[in-house]
Amino acid sequence: MTDQGPRILTIPAGDDRERLTCPDCGFVAYENPKMVAGSVVSVDERIMLCRRAIEPRKGFWTLPAGFLELNETPEEGARREAWEEARARISINALLAVYSVPRISQVQLIYRATLAEPGFEAGPESLEVALFTWADIPWNEIAFPSVRWALDEYKARLNQTVFAPGVNPPGMVVDRF
Amino acid sequence: MTDQGPRILTIPAGDDRERLTCPDCGFVAYENPKMVAGSVVSVDERIMLCRRAIEPRKGFWTLPAGFLELNETPEEGARREAWEEARARISINALLAVYSVPRISQVQLIYRATLAEPGFEAGPESLEVALFTWADIPWNEIAFPSVRWALDEYKARLNQTVFAPGVNPPGMVVDRF
Repeated sequence: MTDQGPRILTIPAGDDRERLTCPDCGFVAYENPKMVAGSVVSVDERIMLCRRAIEPRKGFWTLPAGFLELNETPEEGARREAWEEARARISINALLAVYSVPRISQVQLIYRATLAEPGFEAGPESLEVALFTWADIPWNEIAFPSVRWALDEYKARLNQTVFAPGVNPPGMVVDRF
Repeated sequence: MTDQGPRILTIPAGDDRERLTCPDCGFVAYENPKMVAGSVVSVDERIMLCRRAIEPRKGFWTLPAGFLELNETPEEGARREAWEEARARISINALLAVYSVPRISQVQLIYRATLAEPGFEAGPESLEVALFTWADIPWNEIAFPSVRWALDEYKARLNQTVFAPGVNPPGMVVDRF
């Protein structure tokens, strides 16, 4: 319980569930799940990973990905994140996966992409950016489970141009349907 | 400009863009795009549509769909909305489309589904719920463009079990990639 901001649970008029409201200013904090947009970017046979410069999981490797902003499509968000985190201009060619992390109210849209122009380097949220062959991926230093899922999905789809996007692996919240 | 709630644009510490903050209580309203989860539900060759009992577009026909709630996967959201709006228990079999409406910061995940058990009726947000053959769909009384897109996508995918989800039609914000 905080002592400022939206902190009282009430059901607003016309709604059907409790929302956090601020008793001082009347603001209703409608909270909705957040979308993450990201990409598995390949260059020839190698995959781009970014070593995180920020918490959580600072020092661990991740895909360029982040929260979608207002007035942005998921594709635009994935391109923006690739630029912000890896100074990479990417070209998206397919939706690789849709992952759900309901515990933290997150849905991730991960695209398959290539470099649209040569060159990349660490952006402000990355310690370093590097390309890895499959065998060289630092599997023990991967930041989040869904990064591993997306890399597996990428490999499974390597020679496929048309495919249904992957979802969480069996047993991980929702089964593949 | 309102006179209460978050209404001052400032860049919070550690952020890189302006957010609405409340000068009275200090609350930062991090706004993110909202996700809509919905479904094209078919029964044999007919498609379920709901006539809206609420604004916007009251009286027009739509798919069972609505805003994803916290701690919910998109599939769960689509099933909940089918229950709330059409008292239908559905079984999802594919992700049919991912549509972006960046003007209103919305991303829609539309699934292809069938009835998991017989029966449906109007929920509190619907005036009526009905099944339509393709020829009988009330095309001039469809609530939103993306409903039409999803219906077209459904028809195009009718005999396909594995396919990439559709995106906005060409020229409608983002091209098919």
